[in-house]
Formats: sequence, structure tokens, C-alpha cells
Amino acid sequence: MSSCYGTRLKLSIFGQSHSAAIGMCLDGLPAGEAVDLAQLQAFLDRRAPGRSAWSTARSESDEPEFLSGLVNGRTCGAPLSAILRNRDTRSQDYAALRALPRPSHADYPAQVKYGGYQDVAGGGHFSGRLTAPLCAAGGVCLQILARRGIAVGAAITRIGGVTAQGFDPVGVDADALAAARSAPLSEAMQAEIAAAKAAGDSVGGVIECAVTGLPVGLGEPMFDGMENRIAAIVFGIPAVRGVEFGAGFAAAAMRGSEHNDAYCIRGGRVATETNRHGGVLGGITTGMPLIFRAAVKPTPSIALPQQSVSLERMQEQTLTIQGRHDPCIVPRAVPVVEAAAALAVLDALLERGL
Amino acid sequence: MSSCYGTRLKLSIFGQSHSAAIGMCLDGLPAGEAVDLAQLQAFLDRRAPGRSAWSTARSESDEPEFLSGLVNGRTCGAPLSAILRNRDTRSQDYAALRALPRPSHADYPAQVKYGGYQDVAGGGHFSGRLTAPLCAAGGVCLQILARRGIAVGAAITRIGGVTAQGFDPVGVDADALAAARSAPLSEAMQAEIAAAKAAGDSVGGVIECAVTGLPVGLGEPMFDGMENRIAAIVFGIPAVRGVEFGAGFAAAAMRGSEHNDAYCIRGGRVATETNRHGGVLGGITTGMPLIFRAAVKPTPSIALPQQSVSLERMQEQTLTIQGRHDPCIVPRAVPVVEAAAALAVLDALLERGL
Amino acid sequence: MSSCYGTRLKLSIFGQSHSAAIGMCLDGLPAGEAVDLAQLQAFLDRRAPGRSAWSTARSESDEPEFLSGLVNGRTCGAPLSAILRNRDTRSQDYAALRALPRPSHADYPAQVKYGGYQDVAGGGHFSGRLTAPLCAAGGVCLQILARRGIAVGAAITRIGGVTAQGFDPVGVDADALAAARSAPLSEAMQAEIAAAKAAGDSVGGVIECAVTGLPVGLGEPMFDGMENRIAAIVFGIPAVRGVEFGAGFAAAAMRGSEHNDAYCIRGGRVATETNRHGGVLGGITTGMPLIFRAAVKPTPSIALPQQSVSLERMQEQTLTIQGRHDPCIVPRAVPVVEAAAALAVLDALLERGL
Amino acid sequence: MSSCYGTRLKLSIFGQSHSAAIGMCLDGLPAGEAVDLAQLQAFLDRRAPGRSAWSTARSESDEPEFLSGLVNGRTCGAPLSAILRNRDTRSQDYAALRALPRPSHADYPAQVKYGGYQDVAGGGHFSGRLTAPLCAAGGVCLQILARRGIAVGAAITRIGGVTAQGFDPVGVDADALAAARSAPLSEAMQAEIAAAKAAGDSVGGVIECAVTGLPVGLGEPMFDGMENRIAAIVFGIPAVRGVEFGAGFAAAAMRGSEHNDAYCIRGGRVATETNRHGGVLGGITTGMPLIFRAAVKPTPSIALPQQSVSLERMQEQTLTIQGRHDPCIVPRAVPVVEAAAALAVLDALLERGL
Repeated sequence: MSSCYGTRLKLSIFGQSHSAAIGMCLDGLPAGEAVDLAQLQAFLDRRAPGRSAWSTARSESDEPEFLSGLVNGRTCGAPLSAILRNRDTRSQDYAALRALPRPSHADYPAQVKYGGYQDVAGGGHFSGRLTAPLCAAGGVCLQILARRGIAVGAAITRIGGVTAQGFDPVGVDADALAAARSAPLSEAMQAEIAAAKAAGDSVGGVIECAVTGLPVGLGEPMFDGMENRIAAIVFGIPAVRGVEFGAGFAAAAMRGSEHNDAYCIRGGRVATETNRHGGVLGGITTGMPLIFRAAVKPTPSIALPQQSVSLERMQEQTLTIQGRHDPCIVPRAVPVVEAAAALAVLDALLERGL
Repeated sequence: MSSCYGTRLKLSIFGQSHSAAIGMCLDGLPAGEAVDLAQLQAFLDRRAPGRSAWSTARSESDEPEFLSGLVNGRTCGAPLSAILRNRDTRSQDYAALRALPRPSHADYPAQVKYGGYQDVAGGGHFSGRLTAPLCAAGGVCLQILARRGIAVGAAITRIGGVTAQGFDPVGVDADALAAARSAPLSEAMQAEIAAAKAAGDSVGGVIECAVTGLPVGLGEPMFDGMENRIAAIVFGIPAVRGVEFGAGFAAAAMRGSEHNDAYCIRGGRVATETNRHGGVLGGITTGMPLIFRAAVKPTPSIALPQQSVSLERMQEQTLTIQGRHDPCIVPRAVPVVEAAAALAVLDALLERGL
Repeated sequence: MSSCYGTRLKLSIFGQSHSAAIGMCLDGLPAGEAVDLAQLQAFLDRRAPGRSAWSTARSESDEPEFLSGLVNGRTCGAPLSAILRNRDTRSQDYAALRALPRPSHADYPAQVKYGGYQDVAGGGHFSGRLTAPLCAAGGVCLQILARRGIAVGAAITRIGGVTAQGFDPVGVDADALAAARSAPLSEAMQAEIAAAKAAGDSVGGVIECAVTGLPVGLGEPMFDGMENRIAAIVFGIPAVRGVEFGAGFAAAAMRGSEHNDAYCIRGGRVATETNRHGGVLGGITTGMPLIFRAAVKPTPSIALPQQSVSLERMQEQTLTIQGRHDPCIVPRAVPVVEAAAALAVLDALLERGL
Repeated sequence: MSSCYGTRLKLSIFGQSHSAAIGMCLDGLPAGEAVDLAQLQAFLDRRAPGRSAWSTARSESDEPEFLSGLVNGRTCGAPLSAILRNRDTRSQDYAALRALPRPSHADYPAQVKYGGYQDVAGGGHFSGRLTAPLCAAGGVCLQILARRGIAVGAAITRIGGVTAQGFDPVGVDADALAAARSAPLSEAMQAEIAAAKAAGDSVGGVIECAVTGLPVGLGEPMFDGMENRIAAIVFGIPAVRGVEFGAGFAAAAMRGSEHNDAYCIRGGRVATETNRHGGVLGGITTGMPLIFRAAVKPTPSIALPQQSVSLERMQEQTLTIQGRHDPCIVPRAVPVVEAAAALAVLDALLERGL
């Protein structure tokens, strides 16, 4: 039951880093929705490895093969499924790790949970590679949302010690999101990653995501609010350690008079002058841009020697990780956050019959 | 589908702030579990209103009446249900709010979503009062967990500008949690709340929660990890705007070598020397204390005049909120966070047949 | 997780035969739906005990107290909840049964499953009394469906050896369903029940249910078809042992040319000349009346002595059941089947945003 | 949400009759379970087309390619996924059917539901071909159940007018189930199918399924009983129109004294002398063999001319179906019923941590 998400949409993700293939099945899409495969590939390419200095050198084309759910380029109402073959796998890199867990990876709890039967190669089902089918599913949702006037975009607001301004929480629109998408990583952030890499180390960051064009009234109170739904999928992205909406943790330091957003009329519609609430109140969308941020931990795989424990001999032992790793996964995680948000939003939208 | 939570456990919450009663139904508890009603009442009293200078003056005894699921003080395997009658309701306080939404409350999106049919009195189903049945359910889970050696406790680490040390993430145990539970609110935090109240304002805060005694291996990868499950219920607590695990957002500023927790042997068992991972890796518990924090926004109801919009005349209008409100809900939210965590953890535990 | 049903609607049933109360929580109803309480009570009275010669003598008024979800007689979007107090309970009747399970009741498997902690009084959570809150929930759905032009009605087509014609599967409409509802039990069926009662015995039967006015296209293929959804709730009615749609088991003896329904045009719309398919093909409604039947076993509680087993001494022992029981529960189960069908149909309808 | 099943296990089925592939993803299997692929293939071959006179001539090897979830022949805890390529597709056979729906097929409701975008070729997602991945998933469950001492087997008790004795409901065991599996179809049943085929017609039947070796206490009361769970998956098999447990519809004609099963002691354990209850009381297993039957309608595709309706011209029109079809699908549905039962039973077993 681990790798399923959604209520009206049902997403299943399968595969391991070095299995024959990884893939997804997405049930519940409306019929008749066009899927632009070139546009989807461009979206997937933003996540694919091997495209930059801060990405793993693993080379995967990341081209999904759609097996079902499409007829003549449109959804047919049947579950949409796609697989991506794993090609550039070097499983021998990982053989020794079964008994010597990597710090901050799932190796140790997985060893206990699965009694040693888990797939260790490349991190198995815990690998960041599983975000590729997540992007395949979410990328289709992004296209469907765009036709309904809803845009989803994310940008990096922190890499290690370097921060950047997020979106204008009131004025952000589809154009601003598109501009963010094509903007290169700032030089300061590139330098921060390069410094970590040079030190055999890695670095974390924060991704901010905005959704514009949402109707008022999506989401349900209590446990099915937009925050609950978005957090439930975004925490499914490996390395995410925190999720906050609107002012988020900063709200804890505010007074009510600073945090409350005054209502106003804009263009004949109810709006708020500020958007500390991040477009969600009581779990329900307000029509203002939905804004959330995800904290991404530094890549756990680093070149520096680390202290681990031999699970066979039950004694401490130094570990030096081999293999190919990203010094910073934040840039590649940006489209993944967009995909996750798109899945959560389309699910909520379809639930209301919209 | 809004107010249900859980996989093996199924929690349903019902009621509005001023309805005849509020209540909960909790299905899936093991049979034969003793429920100490006095201990439960003491737990509920920590959340109940009217007990301190920073709480609303609304007076409710908050004594649950158990309707089913208990025989001779033990669970019988049938759904456990309990109701709490609403007594001290003054619905006239809220009559004018239907057309004049309170900033940072759910009034406006609810008005649109429910077409004006929602219960506005006291905030209706969006009221913080709905956390009383959540505590009734979670309080029972806390007792069941305690018998399995699992302790859950929370403490305030921030009120507005005043911060406090959280739990020792490595050494925290049931005793430390019990000590935190009985410690009074610090004078500096009391002063911060008093200052906000004197200014007709409110203030937010941060609650840290720790769970000790967990086995290794709870939770599932991807969308059913402990982070996803906990976030999905904690974001159901009104006013929570962010949830983070372990180092959380601070991890984004770290390098891998700073963030990774070295494995070691402690008392013959695998442990980590530090606990930046917060007891969860890849969604799965590691056996170290599970640590998370929730950001709570300042109470949206403040005495100061605020700008709202008349939904009838579609023009801006000043709103001055009457009624009884907490200048800071953070202290009363502490047991609510514990209850939510207990529900999430027991659900995961039962799922594994433990 | 036992007593919850639905996808867009979420129904939770709670209570035991002799607990303080029984009740239900129904989440997901649209806001603004009027609930006619007198009409609902009339519906519940059809199920209530003590109204006829073939019903148990237990006297319960079966008047639900609505605790939440209604404002000024209309649904408010919050979960609808109602309880029914248990009054005429005689728990001493059941004390001896814990160690001496009644044949064809759940006593024995419940004893093993719950380790002896289950509530034995009156059958506990397994009692047919739990169908009262099911009817309270379903009765509200019936009213909502009626406003959308959808009628649900059931009738008895068999009591023991006496059979009766079912609905005209093509021509049945809301009027025919209303007529069936007010028709008295046939004299032959009354005699069949009286004969069983006189013999200290009980007798079973078959209930046929029809739903008219359905749009084409409700339900999903494979595991979420209308058959799956209806069966999943109807098998939740105690004593139901079979569910069939359209020609049902009789279809097994037919050739395709006998079973297939020819398409035709009726009133400018696509219809079928016959309705062996029972209004559902591939899990999806066709616009023809939806027809299904439920087989109800004879009441397991009979006055005749029966062979049981002492669970304490692990030896065979004769059991003579005391207490008040229906010689035939089929008449009282008719509105229960209607309630179950209404819940399944409204759930499917809301899922499509209708 | 159509093609997902399960609570602890999560099965997703995808594909259309003529899509690139069909497949399944099964999440929640325990890790370390050996999968015997040759044994699985033998199981799938019982369902595969082209093996007998009463099967379609479509030739498919039906060899699943496992993409994930297996390491060295054992489950690894990650979702198990497999695909089967579609090879022998002749989509031109179906081109004309979009506007001229086949009686008793899902063509017409699918056309309305999906607005004409559904995949019509070969019946699309409604095709019986989708039972191949269901068998791949269920076949793995059968192996896991067998190692826990639980055997599942099914047999035909009716083809058209020819009936056969079902299993001995008290004495059936794994050996009897194995014997039934290898027994050829009776000559009378073969003759019944041959006669239908010769007439350009088709014929239905009944399949009985037994599960032996179950522990007492599986399943939950009300909506999560074994009947509800089994019915919810078995009605997902195309052409199933009825499901009954134990005495089933025959119980409706019985008196309680005839239907109740006397308890007795057998081999030191509690048992029943007869098994009219089919191994399930109150939704919970009793330890007696679980027995249910599924009614299968005659194949809707027949060679005889039938009356349909042109959806374009909205007038009646004669349809003569081309293509390759089974005169009777009952023999090929036997392993499908076994697979469905195995999935439902393993799901319930895992839920209890067994």
C-alpha cells in the first residue's frame, strides 16, 4: 500500500533503481484529454540525470513507453500506464552496502523491515529514480490542468547558504511561472553546489511551488484539505523533510494582525491584499495563488568517509561510498515538486466534478 | 470524505462548534484494550477551554460520553464512539459573519464551497472545537501505545518571538516526555501571550513532538511513509501551516556531512549518534526517537478592526470581531498534536500486526 | 475498518445491540439538501421492531437524534451524524451464550477473533439492530436521489416456499416502486411465516430492488462497477448470503441469444427491449432500471433446541435460545436493502459531480 | 479509481485488449516470498486463449514479464509489477462497432461515459483479456497462501442446462481441490458448449470456489466481511452476474432448522457438522471451508444476427458480430475466480499480520 496515491485519481508507482523497468499506472483521468508527448518529454528532461555538473553521471534517456490508456494521442478513460526501462545500471557498486548501511539512506530500516530481501541495488524502491514515473504521471496532469486555466510552477529559494526571493504570492501568474521555469540556476547557487562537490560533500535546499488559476472551494476540511493532500504526496519525494504553506513556519513568529490577510475586491472578485495564507484556509482554496515550500535535505551519498555499522559483525566501521551521485538534487527535484502538486490538484478538481 | 483518517484504524470526526454535539467514531482498535477514563479526562483537560488566561472564556466540561465500543472498561472490537455535548454556545455572536468573512478564517471559501448553507456559528465544522473528539480518539491510542512501550509527548519550542530548546533528539525518553507534559509554560512565553492579548492581538508558535520506543520498520516507502501519514493528520489540526521532521527546514542549509547521522552501536543495538533524520528514513522508522514540529499560525480572531469585504454588496468593509477567543492557541494545541501523532503511529503499528 | 463504506460519501456505523446508543456518521453529502425528518421517520418505521406478528417483541422507538450536519433542516456540508438510544435491552438473556455459541450466528468466530472481549449482549455489533443507523443514512440519501429523479424501491419475491413476481424490469418506474412500498405482505407469505413461527422455527427469503431514473454512465469498470459497489454494501446487511444482478444466476442456464438484450429506440432514447442485464453492463449503468436481488437466510435464532459446543469444556451441548426474535426478518430487511442501494447509488452519482 | 482493489494489498490492473500491453502492479506483498515462475505460467495457461474448442482462436502466449518487485526469484517488498504484450490483435474487426453497440457488452454505456474516446478495439479495458494480469497477480498470491496451508480451488457446477455436484462443503481439502483442477471438463458440458457453438450461440455457467485451511477470524463485520471483499473483486470479472456464499440463494427457501449448522468437535477443534454457512458468519471466517459460487452469463458475442441501434442515426439496425469469440468462457474463468479469491484472502490475512 506504499506507493499508491489519490482519491479520484489513483496513482501507483512501481520499480526499483536497477529493476528491468520503473513505471506508473494512473487511473481516473477523464477521457478525451490530449497528451502532447513532446511537451511531456521536455518536462521529464528537466528531471533526467546527466544533464548538468550537479547531476549524477548515470545516463538514462528517461523516455516513457505508454502501454495503455491512450488512443490516438488522447486518454481513453482506461488506466494510463507507462514504463521506463533502466539501462545504465551498475549494480556491483552496491553489493557491499547490504551489511553496511549508508547514513541518512533507508538502507538500515529497509534491511530490518524486509528481512534482508529488499533490493539494495541503487537504493531499490527508495531511489530518487522513482520520481521519473511520478513526473510522467504529473506531467500529464499539468497538461490537463493548463487546459483548465491552472498553472503549476516551482523555483528554488535556497541552496545551502544561498537564498533567493520566492514568487510574488499575490501577483504570481502563469507567465511568471513560465519565466521561472526557463531561468537558469543563479551563479551563487551554482557556486554553492560546486563548492560542496569539490569538498566531496553535498548540499540541500528549499523549493517553492505556486499554483495559479484555482477555483475557490477545492479541498475538504480536516484530513482532506489541500495541505493534507499536498503534504501526503510531497513527502513521498525522497529527501523532503518539511512542507509549509503560505507564511509557513514564519507564521509562528507573527502576531495575528501581521499574519491575517485583509480581504479586498480586485477585478470585481474577492481577493486578499496579501497572501500569507498561501491560498488555502481551513483546507480549502480561496482563489488566491496556492503557495507551498518543501525542504530538501542534502544528498545523503557523499564521497567523504562516514561512520557506519557492520550489521553482520555489529560493530562500527568506516564507509566510503562509491558510485555516481548528485552533489545537490534540488535542481532536479523542481519538476518533481511540480508533478506532485499537479497530481494533488487535479485529484481535488476531479473530485468536485470539475 | 473530509473528516476521516487512517488505514487500519478509521477515524471519523463529526460536529460543528454549536451543533448539538461533536464526536468521533474510531474503528479498528484491537479488542481487550483497557481504557482508563480518568486518565483520558486528564488528557482532554489539557485541551479544554477556560483553564488559563490565554484561553477562550467559553466554558465546556469536555467530558466525552462513550456510546459504543467499550464493555467493562475494555475495547470490544466494535467501533469506539464518543460524543461531547456543546453547551456554552452563543450563536448570536456570529450571525453577521455570513456576509462579512473573517480574515484568515475559512468563512469565505466555505461560503463559496457550500453555497451559503454552511454552519457559520462558532466556525462550524472548521472550529478548533473539533479537536476535542480528536483528542478523545488519540487519548485512547496513547494508552494503548504506552502498554506497548511507546510514549508520545509534545512541547512548545516557540511562541511569537520567544523560543525554547526542543527535546534532546537522541536521549529523549518517556520520562523526559512526562516531565515536559507537567512543566508550566515559561514566564517569557506567558508574557509574550499577555502582550498580544493586551494589544487586542494574537500570536503563533511552534510545537515539537517526539515519539519514543518505536520499533524499526514502521511505515511504507513513498506515499505511505511516517512523514506522509503524520503530516496528513497534523495538517488536519486547524491553524497548522507547516510540518517538518528531524532537522526539517534547517536541513536545507546544511551539507551532507553535517546532516548525515553516523551509525553506532548503543546497548547492543544499532543507533545513530545524532538524530537529524528525526527517526524516519525513506518513510520508515529507524528505532531512534521520531521527532517532528508543527508551525501554528496566530489565532485569526483578534479584537483589532480588520478590513474585510461585504459579500452581499461586494465592497470593502471594516470588521470588528466580537466573541470569545484565545490570544494564543498553541498551549491548547499541544495535546492535540500528541493525539494526532498517537493515531498515526498506532495505525502504522496495527497495520504491521503489532 | 469494518464499518465504513463509500468513496465520495463516507459512512461509518457504530454501536452494539445493547450499547448506550447506536449511530452513524455520513460525510460527503452536498450542502443545502433538505432533510424531511417526518418522511425519514416513516422510512425508519418500516424497519423498526415490534410492528407486526413476524417481528421481535423488542420495543424501540427508533427515532434518530441528529447531532450534526443539519442547519435549519438542510445539510450544511459538515458530516451528518445521528444516534439512536438503545432502551429495551435485556442483556441477561445473553449471558450464557459466550461459552455456547448459537449456530449460524457470529458468536463463535467473534469469540476467537476478539479473544472473548466482544460484546455478546444482543449480538453486539453483529446485531441486525445496526441496520437502523444504516437506514437513517440511506433514508437521507433516498430523499436526495428523489430530487434528482432517481427512485429506489424493493419488494419481497420469496418467503420460504412462496414466490412472487418481481418488478417489470423494463417498465418499472417511481410509481410502481411506491405502489410496492405500500402493498401489504401477501397472505401466502404471511402464512409461511406464521407456520415457521408456530413450529418454533424461522424462514428466509429473497428481496428484489430496483433503481429507476439513473443516468447512463455511473460506475467504473472492473472493481468499482455498480455491481461491486452494491454488493459491497448489501453483503454488509446481516443474513444476506447472495447478490445477483439482472437475470443473475438464471443467466448461467441461458444461451447468449436468450440473454442478450436487443437495443431499441424508446421515446427518442436508446433503450433495451428486455432487461436481463439489470441496467448494468461492464459495471456501468445503461439507463435501464437497475435490478438486483439479495438472498436472506432464515433467522438463525430459533426456539427449537440445537446442537452447539461448550467452548469451555470443548464438548457438544444442546442449546435452547431464549429471548425475542423475528421468525422472518425479510419484511424488515426490505427498507434496509433500499437504504443500502441508495447509499451506493448516491456515492457513485456524487463521484461524477452529478 | 476503477481498476484498483485491496486494503493491505493494493492491486492495479491496466491495459486494453489491443493496447501495447496489459499489466498489473501489486503493492503490499511481504518480502522474501519465493515466486515459482513455471508454476505461475502453468496457472496462467489454464486461462490463456486458443487452447480448446470452446476458446477464442486468438493466439497469445500470455507470458508475463516481471518488471519489478522480484530479486533472485523472491519478492523484495517493493511493488510487484508485470506486463503482458498484446500481439495477435486485429483491430479492424471492431471499427464499425463504435456506432453500433453489441448487445450485452459495455459498448453503449462506455460510449456515453467516455464521450466516444474509449478504446473500442477488442472491448478495450472491458475485455476479458484484462483477467490475464489479474491471474498473474492472483497466481502469485496462490503460491504465498499455499505456503501458509491455505488452498484455493474452483470447479464448474453448471454449463447451461448441465449441472454437476460441487465440492463436499465439509470435507473438501487441498487434495480435492487439486483433483478438481486436473479433471477434464465433463463430456456433457463439452457437448453443451459444442451445441451452442454449432448454433452460432453461446452459453453461461456457474463456478464454485472453495478455500481451505483458513484460520478462524479473518474479515471484519459489516462492510469489510469476507463476503463483501470477495464479492467486490469477483464482480470485477467480466460476465459475473451473481455471487453467493454457502447455501446462497437456496437458503431463502429454507427454514432456520434446516439451514443452521450444528456445532461439533472434530479432531479436537470446533467445527460444524454441515456447512450451509459457507465458512463465513457475520463476515468472519469460522475455520470451515469458505465456499462461494459465481454466476457467469453466456458470452455476449454470438454469431447470430442481433438487433442493435445506430448511435449516429438513432435508429434500429441489425448487427452481425465478426471476430473470434469463445462460445463459453466459463472454463477459462475458473482460474480467474481462483485468482480473485486468492487476492481477497491474502489481503485479509496480511491485514491481520498473518
